[in-house]
Amino acid sequence: MRAPLLNCDMGESFGNWALGLDEQAMPFVDCANIACGFHASDPDVMRKTVALAVAHGVKVGAHPGYPDLMGFGRRSMACSPQEVENLMLYQIGALEAFCRAEGIRIQYVKPHGALYNDMAGDFDLLQAAMQAVVRYDRELPLLVMSTANPEPVRELAAEMGVTLWFETFADRAYDARGRLVSRRLPGAVHHDRGAIVEQAVALARGEPLIANDGSELRLPADTLCVHGDNAESVAAVKAIREAFQQLADA
Amino acid sequence: MRAPLLNCDMGESFGNWALGLDEQAMPFVDCANIACGFHASDPDVMRKTVALAVAHGVKVGAHPGYPDLMGFGRRSMACSPQEVENLMLYQIGALEAFCRAEGIRIQYVKPHGALYNDMAGDFDLLQAAMQAVVRYDRELPLLVMSTANPEPVRELAAEMGVTLWFETFADRAYDARGRLVSRRLPGAVHHDRGAIVEQAVALARGEPLIANDGSELRLPADTLCVHGDNAESVAAVKAIREAFQQLADA
Amino acid sequence: MRAPLLNCDMGESFGNWALGLDEQAMPFVDCANIACGFHASDPDVMRKTVALAVAHGVKVGAHPGYPDLMGFGRRSMACSPQEVENLMLYQIGALEAFCRAEGIRIQYVKPHGALYNDMAGDFDLLQAAMQAVVRYDRELPLLVMSTANPEPVRELAAEMGVTLWFETFADRAYDARGRLVSRRLPGAVHHDRGAIVEQAVALARGEPLIANDGSELRLPADTLCVHGDNAESVAAVKAIREAFQQLADA
Amino acid sequence: MRAPLLNCDMGESFGNWALGLDEQAMPFVDCANIACGFHASDPDVMRKTVALAVAHGVKVGAHPGYPDLMGFGRRSMACSPQEVENLMLYQIGALEAFCRAEGIRIQYVKPHGALYNDMAGDFDLLQAAMQAVVRYDRELPLLVMSTANPEPVRELAAEMGVTLWFETFADRAYDARGRLVSRRLPGAVHHDRGAIVEQAVALARGEPLIANDGSELRLPADTLCVHGDNAESVAAVKAIREAFQQLADA
Repeated sequence: MRAPLLNCDMGESFGNWALGLDEQAMPFVDCANIACGFHASDPDVMRKTVALAVAHGVKVGAHPGYPDLMGFGRRSMACSPQEVENLMLYQIGALEAFCRAEGIRIQYVKPHGALYNDMAGDFDLLQAAMQAVVRYDRELPLLVMSTANPEPVRELAAEMGVTLWFETFADRAYDARGRLVSRRLPGAVHHDRGAIVEQAVALARGEPLIANDGSELRLPADTLCVHGDNAESVAAVKAIREAFQQLADA
Repeated sequence: MRAPLLNCDMGESFGNWALGLDEQAMPFVDCANIACGFHASDPDVMRKTVALAVAHGVKVGAHPGYPDLMGFGRRSMACSPQEVENLMLYQIGALEAFCRAEGIRIQYVKPHGALYNDMAGDFDLLQAAMQAVVRYDRELPLLVMSTANPEPVRELAAEMGVTLWFETFADRAYDARGRLVSRRLPGAVHHDRGAIVEQAVALARGEPLIANDGSELRLPADTLCVHGDNAESVAAVKAIREAFQQLADA
Repeated sequence: MRAPLLNCDMGESFGNWALGLDEQAMPFVDCANIACGFHASDPDVMRKTVALAVAHGVKVGAHPGYPDLMGFGRRSMACSPQEVENLMLYQIGALEAFCRAEGIRIQYVKPHGALYNDMAGDFDLLQAAMQAVVRYDRELPLLVMSTANPEPVRELAAEMGVTLWFETFADRAYDARGRLVSRRLPGAVHHDRGAIVEQAVALARGEPLIANDGSELRLPADTLCVHGDNAESVAAVKAIREAFQQLADA
Repeated sequence: MRAPLLNCDMGESFGNWALGLDEQAMPFVDCANIACGFHASDPDVMRKTVALAVAHGVKVGAHPGYPDLMGFGRRSMACSPQEVENLMLYQIGALEAFCRAEGIRIQYVKPHGALYNDMAGDFDLLQAAMQAVVRYDRELPLLVMSTANPEPVRELAAEMGVTLWFETFADRAYDARGRLVSRRLPGAVHHDRGAIVEQAVALARGEPLIANDGSELRLPADTLCVHGDNAESVAAVKAIREAFQQLADA
């Protein structure tokens, strides 16, 4: 058993606006997805967040988004594949500069928000994201949404020469095809910490989840998305970390 | 004699707005100062401009500016030294991503517009710019305005461990201290192509210029700034290139 | 017969970037659709463009777009109806300030680019645009794409209390339902000035156009979109103006 | 005695980033300075904040700033007077649209941050700000920093035809010339609520303050700046409001 890496969005402050409890969450995660200035963050925030990750020995990943600060990168934009490739390259490079300044390197790429979702539904955009990684550094894993049927995505990645990390969620319900249940439906988000830890442990053990139609669901789970938005979510990260430690010690 | 490298601002288009005759000027220059998205350019323009430089074997330099698209980076902004260091790192890294995608590396850094001018007048900002280069890659030369008294700048650079390239102009009049005469004064800008070539050749030969008070002026001239804005300025670049070739052949 | 008002996008320069031949086109149009800073233009450009319209006695319309300078407002963004209402209000108000400064008032509203197209395909967004006009000033006409079946749009407008101006094109082919033929198809754009004038005159006379399947097409035509991008398009505007004058004189 | 109007910066959230306790502070202030999207706020925030002000019967003022979201409008930018006039017009108009949508009108203008400070030190910029108000609506008062020597500013305002509101602070120390003591000096900011209320009451009674050199200082005080950043500052606003009520009742 290899527990999924805990990844968490970080560096989402912007100028005078603070967001997220990066300092509290950083000690408990493996991977910091650092915003790159298009949907959140700015050069000063990026510098500080990279330094914080370095201080805690956390891997730094680029977290590029659509150019939409006002919408926090959560509004889909009709960008062409070439535009997506280039806006990802730009943001990856920008973050790498702060990594160099702090003595490390970027270690993976996780697109943000609407871009991440659009990639999951449009192979041309997924390929554009892969192309950005290939042209930048094909050693960098690309995070993609996990799914019950990962083969088509794996085939495209193999063809492009890209390493994938399939990402799962401990606080979200899944349907039988391994898609996240819409937040607008009841039961879509787990708020109980015990339920969140339980789902994380199941994913770590390679055990099936129970989809929202009652069926068993097996998902590749290289990494698990956790949140540092508030005290409650940080407590959940800590609880997952402790549960994973117990698994490792067992 | 080593002729100064011809450097030219490139990649100053933005989205739907075209600016500059990059394709016409690129064949005649040594160094392309490519805008990095804060005062001009965007990811698509940067990608294309880097590819154009690669096609012509031209060195690519990062051309970072203040975050002011509306003002084209020409309005001074009261940024702190730490902000200047970080906004330079961000932009250098962003451009480097496109260099990597096209198989090259950034080869120097030239701050743009008001940032460049502010650095020339404020040692804290100059040091911040040097610090950005040092933290990113101390092998990269930093372009600074030439001056009749380069020693203080050279000392700071030596202390910081940065290589400098002193930049001169062929189409601008200088005062006795080696500062550009203000554009608001008569005779500040040479419009005659012969006069421009003559000043370029003098700089290449290491001969003194005549300052606007009639005195002789000796300027370090590692590089010479040329322009690709319009057909006339491209013709001047071509004429300077030919004159330098004749010097080399002589 | 009442000839459709000639409307033209104006004020699309931004900062250091010039776009469009506003000074050449302004004398021949009735209505200037002035960009409001989200997809193009800036406060200085808006001020100058309003003053130019005033000098020629041309009506000023607000031309609000999605907040996407890099994409010139041509990329659809997944904005909610409330967001669309508010981003239109913001831009209409911003332009009105320059109208007040120059002694006039805004006289209509024409959404730009992807926002305009999205409205044509999504009644929730169309209603949001109408709501913006109603809340701002219900006397202002709202431009919408003409169609062979205008009744549903007219009904919504009547319900909302908004005046519509149906907009047609002289340089574009239509399908039988009155939709513009995609630019990717052959024959979608008329490049021959005679053909453009002929279509404009047919619309002015209330005669049917011939759709791309050979059928007759009748379109409401309160206004006709013309272009000031280049010398050729300005010449077409002038030719249409002269043809309309001949109609009026006849 | 007429107590100075309590004005408070409001609507400083931006997109996903919340800032300020607008709902808690609004019931206790007279005037809401609403950010207009250049240094903070966005169309949705502006709409909500105007509606909140309307619900509490609070006057709405435009709070235009330099175009610098990343720096929150706190970094001076070298804008020309014409640029300042136009960027103020743009922002005033944008806010007015939301006022119209909510059934009110803008009632004053208070420039923000670095723009406000720059105006206090540069008569050309001050005149540009006045010109924006004159061209938009000369009935709108313009807030300016109070000073022990208000005559030069009053003369300029009279010449331009602008009404001034001199603004004072209850939580800041003044020097003998009526300038705010720099925040970098000890004692510059009053943190004790009693001291803050005391200074507010002195201003309301028209009594002199004690400047930082011990001298008596008389300041025109049409309005008093209060803050809604956090619970402590809101408590101070409430305490000032209560003290003013006691004065009025006495």
